[in-house]
Amino acid sequence: MNTASASQSRPLEGLTVIDLTRALAGPYATLLLAGLGAKVIKVEEPKGGDLARENSPYLGRDGVIVERAHDDDISLSHLTRARGKYGVSLDLKSAEGRAVFLDLAAKADIVVENFTAGTADRLGVGYEACRAVNPRIVFASLSGFGATDRDGGKAMDVIIQALSGAMFTSGEPGHPPVRIGIPIADMLAPVFTVIGILAAIEQRHRTGTGQHVDVSMLGALTSFVAIENWSAMAAAGMASRTGLTVQRLSPFGVFECADGYVAVVAVHEPLARGLFAAMGQPELAQDPRFANRDARVANATELEARINAWSRTLPTAEVVRLLEAQKVPVAPVRHPEDALVDPRVVERMETMEVHHPRYGSNIDLRTAGIPIQFSGAATGFDDVLPVQIGEHNEEILRELLGYDDARIAALKAAGTL
Amino acid sequence: MNTASASQSRPLEGLTVIDLTRALAGPYATLLLAGLGAKVIKVEEPKGGDLARENSPYLGRDGVIVERAHDDDISLSHLTRARGKYGVSLDLKSAEGRAVFLDLAAKADIVVENFTAGTADRLGVGYEACRAVNPRIVFASLSGFGATDRDGGKAMDVIIQALSGAMFTSGEPGHPPVRIGIPIADMLAPVFTVIGILAAIEQRHRTGTGQHVDVSMLGALTSFVAIENWSAMAAAGMASRTGLTVQRLSPFGVFECADGYVAVVAVHEPLARGLFAAMGQPELAQDPRFANRDARVANATELEARINAWSRTLPTAEVVRLLEAQKVPVAPVRHPEDALVDPRVVERMETMEVHHPRYGSNIDLRTAGIPIQFSGAATGFDDVLPVQIGEHNEEILRELLGYDDARIAALKAAGTL
Repeated sequence: MNTASASQSRPLEGLTVIDLTRALAGPYATLLLAGLGAKVIKVEEPKGGDLARENSPYLGRDGVIVERAHDDDISLSHLTRARGKYGVSLDLKSAEGRAVFLDLAAKADIVVENFTAGTADRLGVGYEACRAVNPRIVFASLSGFGATDRDGGKAMDVIIQALSGAMFTSGEPGHPPVRIGIPIADMLAPVFTVIGILAAIEQRHRTGTGQHVDVSMLGALTSFVAIENWSAMAAAGMASRTGLTVQRLSPFGVFECADGYVAVVAVHEPLARGLFAAMGQPELAQDPRFANRDARVANATELEARINAWSRTLPTAEVVRLLEAQKVPVAPVRHPEDALVDPRVVERMETMEVHHPRYGSNIDLRTAGIPIQFSGAATGFDDVLPVQIGEHNEEILRELLGYDDARIAALKAAGTL
Repeated sequence: MNTASASQSRPLEGLTVIDLTRALAGPYATLLLAGLGAKVIKVEEPKGGDLARENSPYLGRDGVIVERAHDDDISLSHLTRARGKYGVSLDLKSAEGRAVFLDLAAKADIVVENFTAGTADRLGVGYEACRAVNPRIVFASLSGFGATDRDGGKAMDVIIQALSGAMFTSGEPGHPPVRIGIPIADMLAPVFTVIGILAAIEQRHRTGTGQHVDVSMLGALTSFVAIENWSAMAAAGMASRTGLTVQRLSPFGVFECADGYVAVVAVHEPLARGLFAAMGQPELAQDPRFANRDARVANATELEARINAWSRTLPTAEVVRLLEAQKVPVAPVRHPEDALVDPRVVERMETMEVHHPRYGSNIDLRTAGIPIQFSGAATGFDDVLPVQIGEHNEEILRELLGYDDARIAALKAAGTL
């Protein structure tokens, strides 16, 4: 577990978050808050806890394994998403559990939940219940279609990707849609949730009161899709779904090499000349089909065929070297495993190593860091993780809430913890 | 132009942003700040301005057009990204221009720039220069590889997508990489920039001083890619790049209909039984190849073929209806044009209409809204847009900086504005 630099504080230190989230979308929101310095207290059902604890693969004494073999094998989903969080178990379906939760909310700045819309209110742990005990609370809800949705629709990443239009932005025209391999619907809603929470905290400095922040997975991803001018391009007769290349900017896009692929951008005049020189065919700059931008766009299919005919004969590294020498923007298309260990990304802790708290790791495992650098603050995760459900029950209930041993014992005996 | 509700204030009201950004990544960051209520002052070169003004298509008196025909035709890129921003022209390469900029920075809370790394410092408008006149300034830089990069590498979206590993997360195994049709590298860095800015503003409440916030496009996108456990899955022998379906969760993914595609998730027992019932083949639930989750995963290829053989014969709407009746999570794979007008998304202003300030629009054009709802605050854009470069010079220089008419006239005469 990486820890924050001891020399600088983190920007959100002093803020306390009660985290009711499960799976990916919610826990990624509170992971970002933890990495920025907030104290995050993850609340789990005493029986079973976060379902992400059951996601294969696991990391444990035998390294990475598909099926859990020991009690202390930990799902990589849990190991990466629960970093820097304290863990409390709490049966929210019991009156005692709700009372403990409201005691936590009374001491907190922020609550985050990603139950199906309406569930938190039904359980008695929604915004109104929290506000009654703490008018300063910022209560964030993250759901498939927003808190306004009363259908309670199930919102898995692939369902939201399908509805958002995102699947028909990639791929070749006329071909099937493309499921994006990053869980983009699950990941975008939480970044907007964090923006909403921090904006509400800023407003609280002015007004003294908190509020409800409500983010929809469908809305977050659809707003991203909406940044391209789909209807306008259609109205103007411009192709929008164009596969690996964009012919209206030709040459622009991904080309084939002998052992892989490269991305190349040579839209403007000097770049196109540089590309032709790298190809060993500088005369193309005089060819009327390719001599200026309009000509290159009009003859894009022929131009792309020529580029591929050249690049296909060479290793990716050689194509990159030849184009870089001509100052043409170029990059190898990398696989995730290679991308995650790029020294530029590792140095800035935008990806971070994963270790089992007890056994470390037998291979280099990397996960998401906080991709923001501050000149006057650190980022990173405290060396704390709820390995077991309720791992920090006593610490939190005693120190934050002032419960005594007898009360904690009674809650345990009743199955509330 | 949608305007914020008059009855509620917006969360970031009172904060002033000086916006030096161009193209997409930076302007999207300041667009979010504007929609959350900050006063954003967009600074452009007096000659040419933001390059996004030249992006086709345009909107004007003749509706949507590919080539600009009139002075007041506005690029849809500019029209959507500059919403709610004031416009000031300023030659930052002149000493007078820098002096005006530093006067603005002295009055502001936040500066945002997305020049190539190191350029702002070279121009004399970087963090150190701003801090000297305003120690409370939060200065955000957004670049391809972060402020630590001294290669000054060009960072177009497609180059960053290639380097991040994102292109090899989608598509069928063994097939070429997939360029994601949303400019995901350009869009993710700004959301993290906004999180960084708001976290630094929160820290400023404690410390009284600002700081430099530095976000890398490569780092932001790679951190997203890193949330999946690529190395661990490879080590455990689990397929990670799996195309339209995920066989280890079978049935899960995208299936073909007579007139389109649907996304279906039927991982758990009752859902699989619901799917078989919808298919009119309830006996599959007893078939040893499909009778439990392990069996379905082991026979995923056969199972997917059977689902496609059924769904391919029916219209998408009918497949959706049959599966919804069985409470199986299902959604049509929609095109962006249809997704952007979903009433759930329109109502929450997650997508918003686009109008030319003078001519409106001849068709329904939609763009990104702010995908966050606040119970105690409005979001949305003031009815202001720099149609011309320097549109609000006099208003800003007079009201914010207290310059008199003679000084403004002199700056104009010198070509500084």
